[in-house]
Amino acid sequence: MHGNVIVGQSGGPTSVINSSLVGVYKTAKDRGAKKVYGMLHGIKGLLDRQYVDLSEHIKSDLDIDLLKRTPSSFLGSCRFKLPEIKEGKEVYDKIFEILTELDIEAFFYIGGNDSMDTIKKLSDYAILISSDIKFMGVPKTIDNDLACTDHTPGFGSAAKYIAAATKEIIRDGLVYDYPVITILEIMGRNAGWLTAATALSKGEDCEGVDMIFLPEVAFDIDKFMAKIKGLNKNGKSMVIAVSEGIKVADGRYVFELTDHVEFVDAFGHKQLQGSAKFLADKISNELGVKTRAIELSTLQRCASHMTSRVDITEAFQVGGAAVKAAFEGDTGKVVVLERVSEDPYICTTDTQDVHKIANVEKKVPLEWITENGTFVSEDLIHYIRPLIQAELSPVMVDGLPRHLRLDL
Amino acid sequence: MHGNVIVGQSGGPTSVINSSLVGVYKTAKDRGAKKVYGMLHGIKGLLDRQYVDLSEHIKSDLDIDLLKRTPSSFLGSCRFKLPEIKEGKEVYDKIFEILTELDIEAFFYIGGNDSMDTIKKLSDYAILISSDIKFMGVPKTIDNDLACTDHTPGFGSAAKYIAAATKEIIRDGLVYDYPVITILEIMGRNAGWLTAATALSKGEDCEGVDMIFLPEVAFDIDKFMAKIKGLNKNGKSMVIAVSEGIKVADGRYVFELTDHVEFVDAFGHKQLQGSAKFLADKISNELGVKTRAIELSTLQRCASHMTSRVDITEAFQVGGAAVKAAFEGDTGKVVVLERVSEDPYICTTDTQDVHKIANVEKKVPLEWITENGTFVSEDLIHYIRPLIQAELSPVMVDGLPRHLRLDL
Repeated sequence: MHGNVIVGQSGGPTSVINSSLVGVYKTAKDRGAKKVYGMLHGIKGLLDRQYVDLSEHIKSDLDIDLLKRTPSSFLGSCRFKLPEIKEGKEVYDKIFEILTELDIEAFFYIGGNDSMDTIKKLSDYAILISSDIKFMGVPKTIDNDLACTDHTPGFGSAAKYIAAATKEIIRDGLVYDYPVITILEIMGRNAGWLTAATALSKGEDCEGVDMIFLPEVAFDIDKFMAKIKGLNKNGKSMVIAVSEGIKVADGRYVFELTDHVEFVDAFGHKQLQGSAKFLADKISNELGVKTRAIELSTLQRCASHMTSRVDITEAFQVGGAAVKAAFEGDTGKVVVLERVSEDPYICTTDTQDVHKIANVEKKVPLEWITENGTFVSEDLIHYIRPLIQAELSPVMVDGLPRHLRLDL
Repeated sequence: MHGNVIVGQSGGPTSVINSSLVGVYKTAKDRGAKKVYGMLHGIKGLLDRQYVDLSEHIKSDLDIDLLKRTPSSFLGSCRFKLPEIKEGKEVYDKIFEILTELDIEAFFYIGGNDSMDTIKKLSDYAILISSDIKFMGVPKTIDNDLACTDHTPGFGSAAKYIAAATKEIIRDGLVYDYPVITILEIMGRNAGWLTAATALSKGEDCEGVDMIFLPEVAFDIDKFMAKIKGLNKNGKSMVIAVSEGIKVADGRYVFELTDHVEFVDAFGHKQLQGSAKFLADKISNELGVKTRAIELSTLQRCASHMTSRVDITEAFQVGGAAVKAAFEGDTGKVVVLERVSEDPYICTTDTQDVHKIANVEKKVPLEWITENGTFVSEDLIHYIRPLIQAELSPVMVDGLPRHLRLDL
């Protein structure tokens, strides 16, 4: 028998972050937790004593299955960074006061880099005040930029959605008998993992994208234009994927290049357009070719109608592994995924010290980007491919995917 | 036994335009057509004698099922308007020369408004020169703006994708504990049918969109801002759907309002941003609220991973009905859909004179828009709902939806 536990979700949501929530909930229940509380809007809501008893909201096996298929954070989210311990002792005291009131044995936080910082600080503070509450991090981020883990839950489903959408956009983009140049903008400000997933579109039934540009390599706009000009000579239609975060050599984002010109709105504010729009306009203006800029936007992180079953399962597993570790006495750790076999793909969970993970950003290794910086290597494609495998079909009700909703 | 037939696809593609192609192909074969040719890039390709024998490319039942799940136009598309008959006699003579060479008994064209104009002119010309080649139009357009038909194949799947994506975007958009105003821009320059489909997002498990603005009603930007200000007072997060084609009272598109200001790029060209981006920037600047502009972009017409089975089936049926009608002697007609029962939903096919359909645009009736112009009526929701029902699951290969591709 165990005491009570509490779980929260934080940062940008994903398609599978609720599968981790279910993993925490179900494993804690199965292993004898008395109550499983959910904090609303993460640590920020907890500070206002906003929490629920999850048993009152997850009432059946059907609810669990709907929750696995519900995008975004069931418990709400926040973007809130705890102060440094020496600067905000009263915040920490309040949190521990609330946790003590609720008789909490273990605290789970599902999130990315910033959320792991919360686990780091809370577990450090627990040592300072000799509290035996356990603090465990459960990783999630579509960006796949967490250190010490083979990959992050959320990435596989985002990659699958992006690759599937790219295939469809390619079919649509190559349909005319005159050249159309489509620039596809993919999320990822500093790390190119998601943009790399467009490479998966290539196969027996699809031409794939023509070029891929990641933020890890400086974007050379003149070389880019020369390349496009060359390819366009024989009237070729193209689909090109760029990360939203591509930067020129002096460090400016491509979408900031509009700063040079009078790009202000009715209120005198400078307007930033996307990288894809900037490049599409430039090509259209300089080459007189029809172009199209497409941003996949937030659907990359919330298209739960197209998820990877591998990803959903792993998201559940990291939640469960966090509970198991905490109940066995671990604290100040993050569950990570370890790929123990490439073929067949086998991944297990392990734990790592949160100090090694919080605030570290993992980028695409340069050896996985082709030498001229216009595509990704086969190794990178092999790395991503197993993560997009298999599906968890939506539960369709009256023509649309069904979700489970908590009135926040 | 019948002679040869030829089929082409034209205009903007949809998720289900290939289901109509299969409907023509299979029905023609079943009813004894000798050869079924496919023109590449529509009438424009035909003028260059670009065509294929479809039997060489659709080789199995599996191919047929893949084709039903393949977005965009398998045969390629074109945007080509035939000249008026008296001004371009040589073009018509060339077309009829090629059709005669190929021993064509019937000609099928799958497309929207402009494509029906092609059928109108060719069938008129056939009368002029006493040709007995039959010309039949097969309707498709996501925009649902064709006259004389209850709805158009392609609309149901686009509506289903839009409604499903809207549900996901709402979950994502309402996750934080501070107000975020999301403006969702939906296709449809002059007709608001697709934007109206966002209303289907509302249900037991979803709050639905807060407001909907269609191009059929003049957009009052001051009233809009006042409404937003009012709703925002108590910190409410919102998701608002606007058609890309919303216009202010003097007839300018909302996305053209940036004309007032120095909104030019590095090359001195005026830049148009989207309606959603314009409104999101305006709200953010005037109210200091976090906003997000989302364009669903071309995925609205090519997301074949999320199609309506009703739509796919009807797309097949209109193709088949066109063949049946032509083989029974009809020409100069378009297959239309007739809703014979509302509950249960039953729809049959009929044919209409192409002169009644070509170049006519069907908009959303004003009685289906609420009086203050900020939402759609229950009647409109009831009209759309049956068209998004049931699914045709993608054939998933190695984690991604499989398509059938013709090397154009």
